[in-house]
Amino acid sequence: MSQMFPSAAVLIIGNEILSGRTRDANLGFLAGALAEIGIQVRQARVIPDELSVIADNVNTLRHNYDSLFTTGGIGPTHDDITAEAVALAFGLPLTRHPEALRRLESHYGPDNLNDMRKRMADMPEGALLIDNPISSAPGFSLGNVHVLAGVPMIARAMFEQMKHRLIQGPPLLARTIRAFVAEGVLAKGLKEIQDANADVSLGSYPFMADQRLGASIVVRGRDAGRLDEVADLVATLMKSLNGDPHVETGEGNTKAL
Amino acid sequence: MSQMFPSAAVLIIGNEILSGRTRDANLGFLAGALAEIGIQVRQARVIPDELSVIADNVNTLRHNYDSLFTTGGIGPTHDDITAEAVALAFGLPLTRHPEALRRLESHYGPDNLNDMRKRMADMPEGALLIDNPISSAPGFSLGNVHVLAGVPMIARAMFEQMKHRLIQGPPLLARTIRAFVAEGVLAKGLKEIQDANADVSLGSYPFMADQRLGASIVVRGRDAGRLDEVADLVATLMKSLNGDPHVETGEGNTKAL
Repeated sequence: MSQMFPSAAVLIIGNEILSGRTRDANLGFLAGALAEIGIQVRQARVIPDELSVIADNVNTLRHNYDSLFTTGGIGPTHDDITAEAVALAFGLPLTRHPEALRRLESHYGPDNLNDMRKRMADMPEGALLIDNPISSAPGFSLGNVHVLAGVPMIARAMFEQMKHRLIQGPPLLARTIRAFVAEGVLAKGLKEIQDANADVSLGSYPFMADQRLGASIVVRGRDAGRLDEVADLVATLMKSLNGDPHVETGEGNTKAL
Repeated sequence: MSQMFPSAAVLIIGNEILSGRTRDANLGFLAGALAEIGIQVRQARVIPDELSVIADNVNTLRHNYDSLFTTGGIGPTHDDITAEAVALAFGLPLTRHPEALRRLESHYGPDNLNDMRKRMADMPEGALLIDNPISSAPGFSLGNVHVLAGVPMIARAMFEQMKHRLIQGPPLLARTIRAFVAEGVLAKGLKEIQDANADVSLGSYPFMADQRLGASIVVRGRDAGRLDEVADLVATLMKSLNGDPHVETGEGNTKAL
């Protein structure tokens, strides 16, 4: 199924994520927003701020997925090297983009646009700007690689500005069925439902609430009618095991019933 | 520097992370806990619950880093296939581990230990158990691959049970210096400090508080004395730019001053 529809990868660039300092918030957003337009995130990687490491991962992922989103490393400081790394990956020169520079001049004013801030206008030759309505410094697209900021608010705003450029597919849909039935009790029946309905994907996620164990079963696919049918099968299974199933549209959440 | 000290990778296995349903909480924990014992996480990947994808990534990462931690996919349901995938990666048969089975029998009682739950005792031949003090089903180590649960509370408990097995190094230390000075204003001086002090790594992370922009500068390395010296240089730089630097030990956090 994944071969028929657009796929994406996410490359999270930053020592602060690998050190445990900062918890990534962009993968969850991108995964959900891309699912809405039919693009499935198939892999994410977190890597350090190192030129050759970034370039190597950009090349591997851009060749294996329909699109690649990077987050992080496009600010004004010495550790912001994503644009340089993408240029290296493509074998293209890094050039100062005139329109990006104009936007930075307009935002900072000529007196505050120092040399380090001007670096934010340096991009691989041929880059297409991604508007940044929050802090002006643009991201960019080059081929199927889309370079976004790391700050989640800015990454989200940039994505909204560029998503019309993406080749989209039928939305990825989900149904979530939850009950206070332990995974191990549901497992046999769930496997039978999965085996008989290979066109949808069933995920099982345990939770605990009020000191009781429960499971959220998420049915994923692109056909709403089929998801409803399979969600019914799961709900019937839960009832047969003395559960009181709660069915909702979408991926659900990790909160208790 | 990274070649001299133990490195690690983290493989986060689960469709629920890639769909945006669940936000990973294990990378941050593992990164911090490994840093304390001198092991640097150099890469993390998030991948779906697919046998060949898991096996391929296990093989790539176990060969490129001193140790590999996996999280997720070791429960009783059909989508829990990590043990099978690790066996495939190593070319070893999947066998029912007698001691793991004994622990499951003791936890569930003979009447509740159904066939799907017994699957949690299936591991690659030669696996060394990792105790699970919370829900009994063990993780395992095979060579330099350490297979942990996905539920954060259990992953943490398992890590505490097995960390004595790891080859450790001098702890990774950090100092964080924060002030209400914009990154773009600090950038030139920071680069000069980084260039003159290549034995430490300087990261710059913007924040906003009270509608003012600030930056957290994190100095990372293994020599506490050198970190203090470089942190002093950063604080002096911030003062020269009319900042009021706040210095703390460790990676700091993303909260404002």
